[in-house]
Amino acid sequence: MTQASKASAQDRRWLAAAAALGVRARPLSRPNPAVGAIIVRGGKVLGRGWTAAGGRPHAEAVAIAEAGGSIHGSTVYVTLEPCAHESRRGPACASMLVEARPARVVIGCGDPDPRTNGRGIALLREAGIDAVLADCEASRNSLAGFLTREKLGRPHVTLKLALSLDGCIAMAGGESQWITGPQARAHTHMLRAMSDAILVGSGTVRADKPRLDVRLQGLERFSPARWVLTHGAAPEGWQAVADPGDLTAMTSAQYLLVEGGARTAAAFLAADRVDRLAIYRAPIVIGGGRAGIADIGLGSLAEAHGRWRMSDSRMLGNDQFCVYERTPCLPE
Amino acid sequence: MTQASKASAQDRRWLAAAAALGVRARPLSRPNPAVGAIIVRGGKVLGRGWTAAGGRPHAEAVAIAEAGGSIHGSTVYVTLEPCAHESRRGPACASMLVEARPARVVIGCGDPDPRTNGRGIALLREAGIDAVLADCEASRNSLAGFLTREKLGRPHVTLKLALSLDGCIAMAGGESQWITGPQARAHTHMLRAMSDAILVGSGTVRADKPRLDVRLQGLERFSPARWVLTHGAAPEGWQAVADPGDLTAMTSAQYLLVEGGARTAAAFLAADRVDRLAIYRAPIVIGGGRAGIADIGLGSLAEAHGRWRMSDSRMLGNDQFCVYERTPCLPE
Repeated sequence: MTQASKASAQDRRWLAAAAALGVRARPLSRPNPAVGAIIVRGGKVLGRGWTAAGGRPHAEAVAIAEAGGSIHGSTVYVTLEPCAHESRRGPACASMLVEARPARVVIGCGDPDPRTNGRGIALLREAGIDAVLADCEASRNSLAGFLTREKLGRPHVTLKLALSLDGCIAMAGGESQWITGPQARAHTHMLRAMSDAILVGSGTVRADKPRLDVRLQGLERFSPARWVLTHGAAPEGWQAVADPGDLTAMTSAQYLLVEGGARTAAAFLAADRVDRLAIYRAPIVIGGGRAGIADIGLGSLAEAHGRWRMSDSRMLGNDQFCVYERTPCLPE
Repeated sequence: MTQASKASAQDRRWLAAAAALGVRARPLSRPNPAVGAIIVRGGKVLGRGWTAAGGRPHAEAVAIAEAGGSIHGSTVYVTLEPCAHESRRGPACASMLVEARPARVVIGCGDPDPRTNGRGIALLREAGIDAVLADCEASRNSLAGFLTREKLGRPHVTLKLALSLDGCIAMAGGESQWITGPQARAHTHMLRAMSDAILVGSGTVRADKPRLDVRLQGLERFSPARWVLTHGAAPEGWQAVADPGDLTAMTSAQYLLVEGGARTAAAFLAADRVDRLAIYRAPIVIGGGRAGIADIGLGSLAEAHGRWRMSDSRMLGNDQFCVYERTPCLPE
């Protein structure tokens, strides 16, 4: 049994690169996690991989295959602990790595799946490979959907809002097209394409009959499953969920995108079922318009603080795109 | 009469540096413009200056004095056209420069004051000095208060808003302390210290009895004159203005800071009397709270677009500070 080394700053940069590769697997890896892997020796990349469509082959297998020859003595960076369970669809990644004999395996985060959960790392160490479990934020973020499902039994929820500077989603009379510009709207369609499910309130369904599909050329087939928040029946082609606190009906979805309206946004926030806010902020003032978020039952201003941490801010055309993560995030 | 050269990219960088110096003159230069000047020869700074308290000496005189010896053959960068009118308080800057004989004078923007308005440049050119009028945004921004007063006969108006992510300034019940954190609140006091006048609505005066003073150590004496938007009488220590469309009562103020509430913000926006939005955005969701901006009489969403351009965005602690300029800005 080898003593594990520590993850260096350079290790963390490679892990962040592996996490960026992992994101490429969204959403097609489902129901498997969107893992990324990079194999490095002497500062040179031998192979890269991410989980293939349908979940197989796994990222490690893709990266080993890309490396072609031997990966002896290399370091394998992988965002999630290599799986320890054989499957009809292929050998366990931990066994495959033991056979390929890298010198080190640096792992972004542990796999909570009870079939692996530490066994992947143990297998590597028993074989004399230096297996390092780094606590890597980039890896965790790239696997947020999988980790939320494993740990909380529900999808990772992003609430998307397109707002004026004064927080409105429409004029008082209802006019709402458009708040944001074409770049922001295209970006929203990309968010949709990376989601497994999309949800709006029953009021929005009745008022707007939204298609909620992906209207980006070549990505139309990534349109997510449509859900409506209602105690009633879902329209044809839709599914219904009655309560943001109970998303068990969304059995395989890793990522849910909530697109409004204001009462639906409030219902998810009040139930503390929003993991991420994705806010498109247009440089316009509406004044006395319709607010983007209805009453969330806040008892005092103090309660509102400490819940959200900005993780990204950038311009999309004239609009500002800001992302906030719920904090504290997932239970360890 | 010398033919003027063109302003190079390097010239523009020096002008931007002069503009940053000019801002140091706020607010004490009033009623004079807050001008900045830098004298450069062979890439070395010989002298720097900004308008002194009370308006004299002017930036050029300060920079020449700092240079000490001769500035022959140098380039003088100055944000505003050197004045052409003698005064009891000192000679005209244009005459002083003719005597000092720099090779070039690069000017950020022309002085609309009818006593100068092109005559400063003409005096320099007649004396054989290469006087360049650059169209410099940094210079114009640093002189926004003076230019707005000269061209529009009113102060430059900044509307300050401290908002939640969903555009609220308070909970539905009125609780509003605090939305933003200590860094953002200190920054607001700095904005106050750089303003000549500060204004709130009569409702805010009645409800909050705000002091509106500068509570930054050493800057207390920079507290701006307090104004209330009302058709009635002003409380003691305050002045009253009845209509955002008529700010002529604010005779000498170059910079007015409007701090709310929602109806006052809306009145200024509806009258198109807001030149800059200074928004502090806290990472909190209130939900169903009090909106920061009341009805502004917008006819359609299309009217809301194309009015605001983001000029700054940065973090102040956990809050995001964003600045938007009214566009098109001042008439040329």
